[in-house]
Amino acid sequence: MQDFKIGTCQMNVVDNKNENIQHATQLIRKAAENRDVKLITLPEMFNTPYTHDKFIQNAEKQDESITVNTMCQLASELEIYLQPGSIPELSDDKIYNTAYLINPSGEIIAKHRKMHMFDINTPTMKFTESDTLSAGNNITTIKTDLGVISLAICYDVRFPELWSLMSQNKSDIILLPAAFNLTTGPLHWETLIRTRAIDTQAYVIATSPSQIENPYYIAWGHSMIVDPWGSILAGANKKEEIIYADITKDKIDSVRMQIPVLKHRRTDIYETIEK
Amino acid sequence: MQDFKIGTCQMNVVDNKNENIQHATQLIRKAAENRDVKLITLPEMFNTPYTHDKFIQNAEKQDESITVNTMCQLASELEIYLQPGSIPELSDDKIYNTAYLINPSGEIIAKHRKMHMFDINTPTMKFTESDTLSAGNNITTIKTDLGVISLAICYDVRFPELWSLMSQNKSDIILLPAAFNLTTGPLHWETLIRTRAIDTQAYVIATSPSQIENPYYIAWGHSMIVDPWGSILAGANKKEEIIYADITKDKIDSVRMQIPVLKHRRTDIYETIEK
Repeated sequence: MQDFKIGTCQMNVVDNKNENIQHATQLIRKAAENRDVKLITLPEMFNTPYTHDKFIQNAEKQDESITVNTMCQLASELEIYLQPGSIPELSDDKIYNTAYLINPSGEIIAKHRKMHMFDINTPTMKFTESDTLSAGNNITTIKTDLGVISLAICYDVRFPELWSLMSQNKSDIILLPAAFNLTTGPLHWETLIRTRAIDTQAYVIATSPSQIENPYYIAWGHSMIVDPWGSILAGANKKEEIIYADITKDKIDSVRMQIPVLKHRRTDIYETIEK
Repeated sequence: MQDFKIGTCQMNVVDNKNENIQHATQLIRKAAENRDVKLITLPEMFNTPYTHDKFIQNAEKQDESITVNTMCQLASELEIYLQPGSIPELSDDKIYNTAYLINPSGEIIAKHRKMHMFDINTPTMKFTESDTLSAGNNITTIKTDLGVISLAICYDVRFPELWSLMSQNKSDIILLPAAFNLTTGPLHWETLIRTRAIDTQAYVIATSPSQIENPYYIAWGHSMIVDPWGSILAGANKKEEIIYADITKDKIDSVRMQIPVLKHRRTDIYETIEK
Protein backbone atom coordinates (compact mmCIF):
# COMPACT_ATOMS: atom_id res chain seq x y z
CA MET A 1 0.00 0.00 0.00
CA GLN A 2 1.13 3.56 -0.67
CA ASP A 3 -0.09 6.97 0.49
CA PHE A 4 -1.99 8.94 -2.10
CA LYS A 5 -4.77 11.43 -2.66
CA ILE A 6 -8.20 10.43 -3.89
CA GLY A 7 -10.49 12.63 -5.96
CA THR A 8 -14.21 11.94 -5.72
CA CYS A 9 -16.49 13.49 -8.34
CA GLN A 10 -20.04 14.22 -7.24
CA MET A 11 -21.36 14.98 -10.70
CA ASN A 12 -24.54 16.27 -12.30
CA VAL A 13 -25.99 13.35 -14.21
CA VAL A 14 -28.32 14.31 -17.06
CA ASP A 15 -30.54 12.52 -19.54
CA ASN A 16 -27.94 12.11 -22.28
CA LYS A 17 -25.31 9.38 -22.19
CA ASN A 18 -22.77 11.14 -24.38
CA GLU A 19 -23.06 14.34 -22.40
CA ASN A 20 -22.56 12.39 -19.19
CA ILE A 21 -19.45 10.72 -20.55
CA GLN A 22 -18.02 14.03 -21.75
CA HIS A 23 -18.85 15.74 -18.50
CA ALA A 24 -17.32 12.94 -16.43
CA THR A 25 -14.22 13.20 -18.59
CA GLN A 26 -13.95 16.91 -17.78
CA LEU A 27 -14.30 16.27 -14.05
CA ILE A 28 -11.73 13.48 -14.12
CA ARG A 29 -9.27 15.67 -16.04
CA LYS A 30 -9.78 18.42 -13.49
CA ALA A 31 -9.27 16.08 -10.52
CA ALA A 32 -6.14 14.65 -12.14
CA GLU A 33 -4.57 18.12 -12.37
CA ASN A 34 -3.68 17.56 -8.73
CA ARG A 35 -0.59 15.46 -9.20
CA ASP A 36 -0.99 13.60 -5.88
CA VAL A 37 -4.31 12.20 -7.06
CA LYS A 38 -3.87 8.54 -7.94
CA LEU A 39 -7.47 7.35 -7.79
CA ILE A 40 -10.61 9.09 -9.06
CA THR A 41 -14.18 7.98 -8.47
CA LEU A 42 -17.54 8.68 -10.12
CA PRO A 43 -21.11 8.01 -8.92
CA GLU A 44 -23.46 5.11 -9.38
CA MET A 45 -25.10 5.09 -12.83
CA PHE A 46 -23.08 8.11 -13.90
CA ASN A 47 -24.01 7.84 -17.55
CA THR A 48 -27.77 7.52 -17.22
CA PRO A 49 -30.75 8.78 -15.26
CA TYR A 50 -31.72 6.37 -12.52
CA THR A 51 -34.85 4.86 -14.00
CA HIS A 52 -35.88 1.67 -15.72
CA ASP A 53 -36.36 2.73 -19.33
CA LYS A 54 -33.13 4.74 -19.26
CA PHE A 55 -31.23 1.74 -17.92
CA ILE A 56 -32.51 -0.22 -20.91
CA GLN A 57 -31.83 2.62 -23.34
CA ASN A 58 -28.29 3.28 -22.09
CA ALA A 59 -27.12 -0.26 -21.36
CA GLU A 60 -23.97 -1.34 -23.22
CA LYS A 61 -22.12 -4.58 -23.71
CA GLN A 62 -18.74 -4.31 -22.07
CA ASP A 63 -16.74 -5.08 -25.21
CA GLU A 64 -18.61 -2.50 -27.25
CA SER A 65 -19.12 0.07 -24.53
CA ILE A 66 -18.26 3.63 -25.46
CA THR A 67 -18.43 4.45 -21.75
CA VAL A 68 -15.94 1.77 -20.73
CA ASN A 69 -13.64 2.49 -23.66
CA THR A 70 -13.56 6.19 -22.94
CA MET A 71 -12.79 5.57 -19.27
CA CYS A 72 -10.03 3.06 -20.02
CA GLN A 73 -8.38 5.47 -22.44
CA LEU A 74 -8.63 8.27 -19.92
CA ALA A 75 -7.10 6.22 -17.10
CA SER A 76 -4.22 5.30 -19.39
CA GLU A 77 -3.70 8.84 -20.63
CA LEU A 78 -3.77 10.36 -17.14
CA GLU A 79 -1.94 7.39 -15.57
CA ILE A 80 -4.43 7.06 -12.75
CA TYR A 81 -6.61 4.41 -11.18
CA LEU A 82 -10.17 5.14 -12.19
CA GLN A 83 -13.35 3.84 -10.62
CA PRO A 84 -15.97 5.22 -12.98
CA GLY A 85 -18.95 4.70 -10.70
CA SER A 86 -21.35 2.24 -12.23
CA ILE A 87 -23.19 1.87 -15.52
CA PRO A 88 -25.92 -0.37 -16.90
CA GLU A 89 -24.08 -3.33 -18.38
CA LEU A 90 -25.80 -5.55 -20.94
CA SER A 91 -24.78 -9.18 -20.83
CA ASP A 92 -26.69 -12.20 -22.13
CA ASP A 93 -29.90 -10.18 -22.34
CA LYS A 94 -29.61 -9.15 -18.72
CA ILE A 95 -28.74 -5.71 -17.41
CA TYR A 96 -26.43 -5.39 -14.43
CA ASN A 97 -25.50 -2.36 -12.36
CA THR A 98 -21.76 -2.68 -12.83
CA ALA A 99 -18.75 -0.92 -11.32
CA TYR A 100 -15.31 -1.24 -12.90
CA LEU A 101 -11.87 -0.52 -11.56
CA ILE A 102 -9.36 0.52 -14.21
CA ASN A 103 -5.60 0.69 -13.65
CA PRO A 104 -3.17 3.36 -14.94
CA SER A 105 -2.48 1.18 -17.99
CA GLY A 106 -6.13 1.46 -18.94
CA GLU A 107 -6.94 -2.16 -18.08
CA ILE A 108 -10.05 -3.30 -16.25
CA ILE A 109 -8.71 -5.02 -13.15
CA ALA A 110 -11.95 -5.52 -11.21
CA LYS A 111 -15.65 -5.55 -11.91
CA HIS A 112 -18.47 -5.58 -9.38
CA ARG A 113 -22.08 -6.19 -10.23
CA LYS A 114 -24.42 -4.81 -7.57
CA MET A 115 -25.34 -7.80 -5.43
CA HIS A 116 -28.48 -6.55 -3.73
CA MET A 117 -31.44 -5.24 -5.68
CA PHE A 118 -33.00 -2.06 -4.33
CA ASP A 119 -36.66 -3.02 -4.09
CA ILE A 120 -38.24 -0.70 -1.57
CA ASN A 121 -41.66 0.68 -0.86
CA THR A 122 -41.81 3.64 1.51
CA PRO A 123 -44.55 6.28 1.74
CA THR A 124 -42.35 8.69 -0.23
CA MET A 125 -40.36 6.33 -2.43
CA LYS A 126 -41.15 3.15 -4.31
CA PHE A 127 -38.54 1.58 -6.53
CA THR A 128 -38.21 -1.98 -7.75
CA GLU A 129 -34.77 -2.22 -9.25
CA SER A 130 -35.19 -5.91 -10.01
CA ASP A 131 -37.88 -5.08 -12.57
CA THR A 132 -35.03 -4.21 -14.92
CA LEU A 133 -31.74 -5.16 -13.34
CA SER A 134 -30.18 -8.47 -12.38
CA ALA A 135 -28.00 -8.99 -9.34
CA GLY A 136 -24.34 -9.92 -9.40
CA ASN A 137 -23.10 -12.86 -7.40
CA ASN A 138 -19.55 -11.97 -6.45
CA ILE A 139 -17.71 -10.14 -3.73
CA THR A 140 -15.11 -7.97 -5.40
CA THR A 141 -11.70 -7.33 -3.89
CA ILE A 142 -8.38 -6.74 -5.65
CA LYS A 143 -4.86 -6.07 -4.50
CA THR A 144 -3.33 -3.00 -6.15
CA ASP A 145 -0.26 -0.92 -5.45
CA LEU A 146 -2.56 1.64 -3.83
CA GLY A 147 -3.73 -1.00 -1.35
CA VAL A 148 -6.38 -3.70 -1.30
CA ILE A 149 -9.50 -2.24 -2.89
CA SER A 150 -13.04 -3.58 -2.72
CA LEU A 151 -16.10 -2.45 -4.64
CA ALA A 152 -19.72 -2.31 -3.53
CA ILE A 153 -22.67 -0.39 -4.95
CA CYS A 154 -25.28 1.65 -3.07
CA TYR A 155 -27.84 -0.75 -1.54
CA ASP A 156 -24.98 -3.21 -0.94
CA VAL A 157 -24.10 -0.89 1.95
CA ARG A 158 -27.06 -2.20 3.93
CA PHE A 159 -25.74 -5.75 4.15
CA PRO A 160 -23.15 -6.06 6.92
CA GLU A 161 -22.18 -9.59 5.93
CA LEU A 162 -20.86 -8.36 2.59
CA TRP A 163 -18.78 -5.83 4.53
CA SER A 164 -17.51 -8.49 6.92
CA LEU A 165 -16.34 -10.49 3.92
CA MET A 166 -14.71 -7.47 2.26
CA SER A 167 -12.98 -6.88 5.58
CA GLN A 168 -11.85 -10.51 5.78
CA ASN A 169 -10.41 -9.95 2.29
CA LYS A 170 -8.13 -7.39 4.01
CA SER A 171 -9.59 -4.36 2.28
CA ASP A 172 -7.81 -1.06 2.89
CA ILE A 173 -10.16 0.99 0.72
CA ILE A 174 -13.79 0.28 -0.13
CA LEU A 175 -15.30 2.21 -3.03
CA LEU A 176 -19.05 2.68 -2.95
CA PRO A 177 -20.65 4.41 -5.92
CA ALA A 178 -24.15 5.07 -4.67
CA ALA A 179 -27.31 7.12 -5.11
CA PHE A 180 -29.40 7.28 -1.98
CA ASN A 181 -32.56 9.32 -2.35
CA LEU A 182 -34.22 12.14 -0.45
CA THR A 183 -36.03 9.68 1.85
CA THR A 184 -33.21 7.32 2.80
CA GLY A 185 -30.43 9.90 2.45
CA PRO A 186 -31.21 12.06 5.48
CA LEU A 187 -32.04 8.98 7.57
CA HIS A 188 -29.28 6.54 6.80
CA TRP A 189 -26.56 7.67 4.40
CA GLU A 190 -23.91 9.10 6.69
CA THR A 191 -24.63 6.71 9.55
CA LEU A 192 -24.26 3.58 7.46
CA ILE A 193 -21.17 4.74 5.58
CA ARG A 194 -19.39 5.82 8.75
CA THR A 195 -20.22 2.57 10.52
CA ARG A 196 -18.96 0.43 7.65
CA ALA A 197 -15.67 2.34 7.86
CA ILE A 198 -15.54 1.87 11.64
CA ASP A 199 -16.35 -1.83 11.36
CA THR A 200 -13.90 -2.62 8.56
CA GLN A 201 -11.29 -0.09 9.75
CA ALA A 202 -10.86 0.79 6.10
CA TYR A 203 -11.35 3.96 4.09
CA VAL A 204 -14.83 4.10 2.62
CA ILE A 205 -15.47 6.42 -0.30
CA ALA A 206 -19.11 6.97 -1.21
CA THR A 207 -19.66 8.77 -4.50
CA SER A 208 -23.13 10.01 -5.37
CA PRO A 209 -24.60 12.00 -8.24
CA SER A 210 -25.32 15.55 -7.15
CA GLN A 211 -28.82 16.43 -5.99
CA ILE A 212 -30.33 18.03 -9.09
CA GLU A 213 -33.91 18.26 -10.21
CA ASN A 214 -34.94 15.65 -12.73
CA PRO A 215 -38.14 13.78 -13.49
CA TYR A 216 -36.71 10.34 -12.65
CA TYR A 217 -34.86 9.97 -9.37
CA ILE A 218 -33.22 12.68 -7.30
CA ALA A 219 -30.03 11.56 -5.59
CA TRP A 220 -29.12 12.66 -2.08
CA GLY A 221 -25.62 13.80 -2.98
CA HIS A 222 -23.41 14.18 0.10
CA SER A 223 -20.54 12.16 -1.31
CA MET A 224 -17.96 11.51 1.37
CA ILE A 225 -14.50 10.18 2.03
CA VAL A 226 -14.45 8.50 5.43
CA ASP A 227 -11.35 7.31 7.24
CA PRO A 228 -10.97 4.08 9.26
CA TRP A 229 -12.02 5.91 12.46
CA GLY A 230 -15.30 6.83 10.83
CA SER A 231 -14.31 10.49 10.49
CA ILE A 232 -15.45 12.34 7.38
CA LEU A 233 -12.25 13.64 5.77
CA ALA A 234 -14.09 15.40 2.97
CA GLY A 235 -17.78 15.70 2.24
CA ALA A 236 -19.83 17.28 -0.53
CA ASN A 237 -23.22 18.86 -0.05
CA LYS A 238 -25.95 18.80 -2.70
CA LYS A 239 -24.16 20.38 -5.63
CA GLU A 240 -21.62 19.11 -8.11
CA GLU A 241 -18.21 19.15 -6.52
CA ILE A 242 -14.91 17.28 -6.52
CA ILE A 243 -13.71 16.41 -3.04
CA TYR A 244 -10.22 15.23 -2.16
CA ALA A 245 -8.58 13.51 0.77
CA ASP A 246 -5.33 11.80 1.67
CA ILE A 247 -5.32 8.04 2.11
CA THR A 248 -2.49 6.81 4.34
CA LYS A 249 -1.27 3.46 5.54
CA ASP A 250 -0.39 5.04 8.89
CA LYS A 251 -4.01 5.86 9.61
CA ILE A 252 -5.15 2.33 8.89
CA ASP A 253 -2.37 0.81 10.98
CA SER A 254 -2.95 3.21 13.84
CA VAL A 255 -6.71 2.58 14.06
CA ARG A 256 -6.25 -1.18 13.84
CA MET A 257 -3.66 -1.07 16.59
CA GLN A 258 -5.70 1.14 18.92
CA ILE A 259 -9.05 -0.66 18.77
CA PRO A 260 -8.20 -4.07 17.36
CA VAL A 261 -11.71 -5.21 16.52
CA LEU A 262 -10.52 -7.22 13.56
CA LYS A 263 -8.42 -9.35 15.93
CA HIS A 264 -11.10 -9.43 18.64
CA ARG A 265 -13.72 -11.09 16.46
CA ARG A 266 -14.92 -14.26 18.21
CA THR A 267 -14.30 -16.60 15.33
CA ASP A 268 -14.53 -19.47 17.79
CA ILE A 269 -18.21 -18.55 18.18
CA TYR A 270 -19.25 -17.14 14.81
CA GLU A 271 -18.01 -16.69 11.29
CA THR A 272 -19.20 -15.09 8.11
CA ILE A 273 -18.72 -17.48 5.26
CA GLU A 274 -18.78 -17.07 1.52
CA LYS A 275 -20.58 -20.01 0.00
CA MET B 1 -45.11 -9.04 20.85
CA GLN B 2 -47.05 -6.25 22.56
CA ASP B 3 -46.74 -2.46 22.58
CA PHE B 4 -45.27 -0.99 25.73
CA LYS B 5 -43.15 1.80 27.13
CA ILE B 6 -39.53 1.31 28.13
CA GLY B 7 -37.77 3.24 30.88
CA THR B 8 -33.99 3.58 30.57
CA CYS B 9 -32.05 4.74 33.64
CA GLN B 10 -28.83 6.60 32.93
CA MET B 11 -27.59 6.53 36.53
CA ASN B 12 -24.78 7.99 38.57
CA VAL B 13 -22.58 5.05 39.52
CA VAL B 14 -20.44 5.61 42.63
CA ASP B 15 -17.75 3.74 44.52
CA ASN B 16 -20.08 1.90 46.87
CA LYS B 17 -21.97 -1.21 45.85
CA ASN B 18 -24.78 -0.88 48.38
CA GLU B 19 -25.35 2.74 47.50
CA ASN B 20 -25.50 1.82 43.81
CA ILE B 21 -28.06 -0.89 44.47
CA GLN B 22 -30.18 1.45 46.58
CA HIS B 23 -29.92 4.23 44.05
CA ALA B 24 -30.80 1.92 41.17
CA THR B 25 -33.80 0.76 43.19
CA GLN B 26 -34.98 4.36 43.55
CA LEU B 27 -34.63 5.00 39.83
CA ILE B 28 -36.46 1.81 38.92
CA ARG B 29 -39.30 2.63 41.33
CA LYS B 30 -39.54 6.06 39.77
CA ALA B 31 -39.60 4.71 36.21
CA ALA B 32 -42.23 2.15 37.19
CA GLU B 33 -44.58 4.90 38.41
CA ASN B 34 -45.44 5.30 34.75
CA ARG B 35 -47.92 2.49 34.43
CA ASP B 36 -47.22 1.89 30.72
CA VAL B 37 -43.62 1.03 31.54
CA LYS B 38 -43.15 -2.72 31.21
CA LEU B 39 -39.36 -2.91 30.85
CA ILE B 40 -36.68 -0.94 32.71
CA THR B 41 -32.96 -0.93 31.94
CA LEU B 42 -29.82 0.01 33.86
CA PRO B 43 -26.24 0.63 32.66
CA GLU B 44 -23.23 -1.63 32.28
CA MET B 45 -21.50 -2.32 35.61
CA PHE B 46 -24.15 -0.35 37.47
CA ASN B 47 -23.05 -1.51 40.91
CA THR B 48 -19.34 -0.81 40.64
CA PRO B 49 -16.83 1.68 39.27
CA TYR B 50 -15.42 0.55 35.97
CA THR B 51 -11.96 -0.54 37.03
CA HIS B 52 -10.13 -3.78 37.71
CA ASP B 53 -9.79 -3.79 41.48
CA LYS B 54 -13.39 -2.70 41.92
CA PHE B 55 -14.58 -5.50 39.64
CA ILE B 56 -12.76 -7.92 41.92
CA GLN B 57 -14.00 -6.24 45.09
CA ASN B 58 -17.64 -6.10 43.96
CA ALA B 59 -17.94 -9.42 42.12
CA GLU B 60 -20.66 -11.72 43.44
CA LYS B 61 -21.66 -15.30 42.82
CA GLN B 62 -25.07 -15.35 41.23
CA ASP B 63 -26.70 -17.51 43.89
CA GLU B 64 -25.44 -15.32 46.71
CA SER B 65 -25.66 -11.98 44.93
CA ILE B 66 -27.32 -9.21 46.90
CA THR B 67 -27.49 -7.27 43.62
CA VAL B 68 -29.30 -10.00 41.73
CA ASN B 69 -31.60 -10.81 44.65
CA THR B 70 -32.58 -7.20 45.10
CA MET B 71 -33.33 -6.81 41.41
CA CYS B 72 -35.37 -10.03 41.23
CA GLN B 73 -37.47 -8.96 44.21
CA LEU B 74 -37.98 -5.53 42.71
CA ALA B 75 -39.09 -6.91 39.33
CA SER B 76 -41.57 -9.15 41.09
CA GLU B 77 -42.90 -6.41 43.36
CA LEU B 78 -43.32 -3.93 40.52
CA GLU B 79 -44.43 -6.60 38.03
CA ILE B 80 -42.03 -5.43 35.33
CA TYR B 81 -39.35 -6.86 33.12
CA LEU B 82 -36.04 -5.65 34.45
CA GLN B 83 -32.69 -5.61 32.67
CA PRO B 84 -30.40 -4.44 35.45
CA GLY B 85 -27.48 -3.49 33.23
CA SER B 86 -24.49 -5.65 34.02
CA ILE B 87 -22.50 -6.58 37.10
CA PRO B 88 -19.25 -8.41 37.81
CA GLU B 89 -20.29 -12.03 38.24
CA LEU B 90 -17.98 -14.45 40.04
CA SER B 91 -18.10 -18.00 38.76
CA ASP B 92 -15.45 -20.72 39.16
CA ASP B 93 -12.82 -18.16 40.10
CA LYS B 94 -13.51 -16.15 36.97
CA ILE B 95 -15.22 -12.80 36.76
CA TYR B 96 -17.65 -12.12 33.93
CA ASN B 97 -19.35 -8.93 32.87
CA THR B 98 -22.90 -10.28 33.07
CA ALA B 99 -26.28 -8.90 32.08
CA TYR B 100 -29.49 -10.52 33.32
CA LEU B 101 -33.04 -10.25 32.14
CA ILE B 102 -35.63 -10.72 34.89
CA ASN B 103 -39.33 -11.29 34.27
CA PRO B 104 -42.28 -9.82 36.23
CA SER B 105 -42.33 -12.93 38.42
CA GLY B 106 -38.81 -12.10 39.55
CA GLU B 107 -37.19 -14.96 37.66
CA ILE B 108 -33.98 -14.70 35.68
CA ILE B 109 -34.98 -15.64 32.14
CA ALA B 110 -31.79 -14.73 30.27
CA LYS B 111 -28.17 -14.08 31.07
CA HIS B 112 -25.53 -12.64 28.77
CA ARG B 113 -21.84 -12.59 29.53
CA LYS B 114 -20.00 -9.95 27.52
CA MET B 115 -18.47 -11.81 24.59
CA HIS B 116 -15.79 -9.38 23.49
CA MET B 117 -13.17 -8.07 25.86
CA PHE B 118 -12.46 -4.35 25.62
CA ASP B 119 -8.69 -4.28 25.24
CA ILE B 120 -7.81 -0.98 23.64
CA ASN B 121 -4.86 1.34 23.52
CA THR B 122 -5.51 4.83 22.18
CA PRO B 123 -3.50 7.99 22.90
CA THR B 124 -6.12 9.07 25.44
CA MET B 125 -7.41 5.72 26.72
CA LYS B 126 -5.80 2.42 27.55
CA PHE B 127 -7.87 -0.35 29.07
CA THR B 128 -7.30 -4.09 29.09
CA GLU B 129 -10.52 -5.60 30.30
CA SER B 130 -9.21 -9.12 29.90
CA ASP B 131 -6.70 -8.51 32.70
CA THR B 132 -9.59 -9.14 35.09
CA LEU B 133 -12.60 -10.31 33.16
CA SER B 134 -13.35 -13.43 31.17
CA ALA B 135 -15.46 -13.49 28.04
CA GLY B 136 -18.78 -15.24 27.66
CA ASN B 137 -19.37 -17.61 24.80
CA ASN B 138 -23.05 -17.34 24.03
CA ILE B 139 -25.39 -15.26 21.95
CA THR B 140 -28.37 -14.42 24.11
CA THR B 141 -31.89 -14.18 22.74
CA ILE B 142 -35.16 -14.98 24.48
CA LYS B 143 -38.78 -14.85 23.46
CA THR B 144 -40.95 -12.90 25.92
CA ASP B 145 -44.46 -11.52 25.77
CA LEU B 146 -42.89 -8.09 25.11
CA GLY B 147 -41.23 -9.48 21.99
CA VAL B 148 -38.01 -11.32 21.20
CA ILE B 149 -35.28 -9.71 23.30
CA SER B 150 -31.51 -10.05 22.85
CA LEU B 151 -28.76 -8.87 25.15
CA ALA B 152 -25.31 -7.52 24.28
CA ILE B 153 -22.86 -5.49 26.33
CA CYS B 154 -20.89 -2.39 25.28
CA TYR B 155 -17.90 -3.52 23.19
CA ASP B 156 -20.11 -6.28 21.75
CA VAL B 157 -21.63 -3.45 19.69
CA ARG B 158 -18.52 -3.34 17.52
CA PHE B 159 -18.96 -6.84 16.13
CA PRO B 160 -21.50 -6.89 13.32
CA GLU B 161 -21.55 -10.68 13.12
CA LEU B 162 -23.00 -10.91 16.62
CA TRP B 163 -25.70 -8.47 15.49
CA SER B 164 -26.38 -10.49 12.35
CA LEU B 165 -26.92 -13.53 14.53
CA MET B 166 -29.16 -11.66 16.99
CA SER B 167 -31.10 -10.50 13.94
CA GLN B 168 -31.33 -14.05 12.59
CA ASN B 169 -32.73 -14.97 16.01
CA LYS B 170 -35.62 -12.64 15.10
CA SER B 171 -34.87 -10.03 17.74
CA ASP B 172 -37.42 -7.25 18.11
CA ILE B 173 -35.55 -5.47 20.90
CA ILE B 174 -31.82 -5.51 21.62
CA LEU B 175 -30.72 -4.27 25.03
CA LEU B 176 -27.19 -2.91 25.25
CA PRO B 177 -25.94 -1.87 28.68
CA ALA B 178 -22.73 -0.02 27.83
CA ALA B 179 -20.16 2.48 29.00
CA PHE B 180 -18.30 4.10 26.16
CA ASN B 181 -15.69 6.62 27.28
CA LEU B 182 -14.83 10.22 26.39
CA THR B 183 -12.59 9.09 23.52
CA THR B 184 -14.79 6.54 21.78
CA GLY B 185 -18.09 8.13 22.81
CA PRO B 186 -17.97 11.24 20.62
CA LEU B 187 -16.51 9.27 17.72
CA HIS B 188 -18.56 6.14 17.58
CA TRP B 189 -21.39 5.77 20.12
CA GLU B 190 -24.39 7.16 18.28
CA THR B 191 -23.24 6.03 14.85
CA LEU B 192 -22.76 2.41 15.85
CA ILE B 193 -25.97 2.16 17.87
CA ARG B 194 -28.09 3.69 15.14
CA THR B 195 -26.56 1.46 12.47
CA ARG B 196 -27.16 -1.70 14.49
CA ALA B 197 -30.81 -0.68 14.75
CA ILE B 198 -30.97 0.05 11.01
CA ASP B 199 -29.29 -3.26 10.15
CA THR B 200 -31.37 -5.44 12.49
CA GLN B 201 -34.55 -3.38 12.04
CA ALA B 202 -35.03 -3.80 15.76
CA TYR B 203 -35.25 -1.40 18.66
CA VAL B 204 -31.84 -0.90 20.25
CA ILE B 205 -31.66 0.48 23.76
CA ALA B 206 -28.22 1.58 24.92
CA THR B 207 -27.99 2.36 28.64
CA SER B 208 -24.89 4.06 29.99
CA PRO B 209 -23.85 5.35 33.38
CA SER B 210 -24.03 9.12 33.49
CA GLN B 211 -20.89 11.13 32.78
CA ILE B 212 -19.70 12.00 36.28
CA GLU B 213 -16.24 12.73 37.54
CA ASN B 214 -14.51 9.79 39.18
CA PRO B 215 -10.93 8.60 39.43
CA TYR B 216 -11.53 5.36 37.52
CA TYR B 217 -13.36 5.58 34.21
CA ILE B 218 -15.67 8.33 33.03
CA ALA B 219 -18.55 7.07 30.94
CA TRP B 220 -19.85 8.95 27.92
CA GLY B 221 -23.50 8.88 29.01
CA HIS B 222 -25.84 9.67 26.10
CA SER B 223 -28.09 6.66 26.70
CA MET B 224 -30.53 6.29 23.86
CA ILE B 225 -33.60 4.44 22.68
CA VAL B 226 -33.38 3.94 18.92
CA ASP B 227 -36.17 2.65 16.71
CA PRO B 228 -35.85 0.23 13.78
CA TRP B 229 -35.40 3.17 11.37
CA GLY B 230 -32.35 4.28 13.33
CA SER B 231 -34.18 7.31 14.73
CA ILE B 232 -33.40 8.31 18.30
CA LEU B 233 -36.75 8.25 20.10
CA ALA B 234 -35.27 9.44 23.38
CA GLY B 235 -31.75 10.38 24.32
CA ALA B 236 -30.03 11.45 27.52
CA ASN B 237 -27.15 13.88 27.68
CA LYS B 238 -24.38 13.65 30.29
CA LYS B 239 -26.39 13.75 33.48
CA GLU B 240 -28.43 11.20 35.36
CA GLU B 241 -31.82 10.91 33.73
CA ILE B 242 -34.55 8.41 33.02
CA ILE B 243 -35.65 8.40 29.39
CA TYR B 244 -38.78 6.75 28.05
CA ALA B 245 -40.08 5.68 24.68
CA ASP B 246 -42.86 3.62 23.16
CA ILE B 247 -41.99 0.30 21.58
CA THR B 248 -44.52 -0.82 18.98
CA LYS B 249 -44.95 -3.82 16.75
CA ASP B 250 -46.32 -1.54 14.02
CA LYS B 251 -43.03 0.32 13.73
CA ILE B 252 -41.05 -2.88 13.36
CA ASP B 253 -43.46 -4.30 10.80
CA SER B 254 -43.59 -1.07 8.86
CA VAL B 255 -39.81 -0.67 8.59
CA ARG B 256 -39.32 -4.30 7.60
CA MET B 257 -41.98 -3.96 4.93
CA GLN B 258 -40.61 -0.71 3.49
CA ILE B 259 -36.92 -1.61 3.19
CA PRO B 260 -36.89 -5.40 3.45
CA VAL B 261 -33.16 -5.87 4.02
CA LEU B 262 -33.74 -8.94 6.17
CA LYS B 263 -35.37 -10.64 3.17
CA HIS B 264 -32.85 -9.24 0.67
CA ARG B 265 -29.82 -10.82 2.33
CA ARG B 266 -27.96 -12.89 -0.28
CA THR B 267 -27.87 -16.10 1.71
CA ASP B 268 -27.07 -17.91 -1.51
CA ILE B 269 -23.73 -16.06 -1.46
CA TYR B 270 -22.92 -15.56 2.23
CA GLU B 271 -24.09 -16.53 5.65
CA THR B 272 -23.20 -15.77 9.23
CA ILE B 273 -22.98 -18.99 11.16
CA GLU B 274 -22.88 -19.75 14.85
CA LYS B 275 -20.35 -22.48 15.43
